[in-house]
Amino acid sequence: MNQVMENILTRRSVRGFNEKPIPREELEQILKAATYAPSGMNRQTWQFTAILNQEKITKLAGLIEKLLDRKGYNFYKPTALVLTSNLKESRWAKEDNACALENMFLAAHSFGIGSVWINQLQEICDEPEVRQFLNEVGIPTDHDVFGIAALGYAEKEPNQEVNKQGIIKIIE
Amino acid sequence: MNQVMENILTRRSVRGFNEKPIPREELEQILKAATYAPSGMNRQTWQFTAILNQEKITKLAGLIEKLLDRKGYNFYKPTALVLTSNLKESRWAKEDNACALENMFLAAHSFGIGSVWINQLQEICDEPEVRQFLNEVGIPTDHDVFGIAALGYAEKEPNQEVNKQGIIKIIE
Repeated sequence: MNQVMENILTRRSVRGFNEKPIPREELEQILKAATYAPSGMNRQTWQFTAILNQEKITKLAGLIEKLLDRKGYNFYKPTALVLTSNLKESRWAKEDNACALENMFLAAHSFGIGSVWINQLQEICDEPEVRQFLNEVGIPTDHDVFGIAALGYAEKEPNQEVNKQGIIKIIE
Repeated sequence: MNQVMENILTRRSVRGFNEKPIPREELEQILKAATYAPSGMNRQTWQFTAILNQEKITKLAGLIEKLLDRKGYNFYKPTALVLTSNLKESRWAKEDNACALENMFLAAHSFGIGSVWINQLQEICDEPEVRQFLNEVGIPTDHDVFGIAALGYAEKEPNQEVNKQGIIKIIE
């Protein structure tokens, strides 16, 4: 099997990270991978904001804990969070950002770095405290966050067993 | 650079295909890649319907031509179309299906097969003639099509030049 297929088939969501830092060059490659995703009409109106600062990650988790009543929320203690944002009114923001996130997950996995999709922020971007936080990290006020990649080294290897339920049909 | 990164960075949308058929095994690998995308709450309520039948592809293009007034529409004459559908009311249908599509684009590229995202169907799934077509190819009536992968060998190699406009920020 080629390495691309192998990487796709062995990627799993990781929900627990240790504290080992991500090499800067690999983080930059992961972010570069995001920008190479397809984008509707090639508009590329997205932004990728990587937060390595643990105080800021904890602060954002605290906002989710408070606003969404998620006691003890911590994003699974990642080394980095990448917030993928896009213009609120972008017609394909969800699709474009999802492709960029999948590119990041696959790139990370190719470096042995674990990842998981975090989706709590999408509905609460305009809560004043969240918007204030987004401002602080440089996310434009006309952007919403359409998904987050939590990144880090897995605390333990994720289970490789799968239960694939998607139906495939081939019409010849 | 590892092969996974190289594959991500060299994938381009292909908008013109020749008639060389896709090997069955590679088509099956591409479809398998789709099912290994992440899915919100791991619900996997998606279906992947590959259409190889050129009459059916032409018929679907004709429906888009008629309903969306796209004269001469032909999906760029692909060898195969993969319709990615999901429950209409699925909360994360767009995101899940986008990740599955990106996996297919990347898997296809790893086999030297070109691809492009087609999005015309999403808004017109419930037009009676479109729903009739979807029924004929076995897509459930409670599904909408959230994106299509057109697949085939590129008529000419796509331009590798890029103009990446996405902004990257790193907050330390």
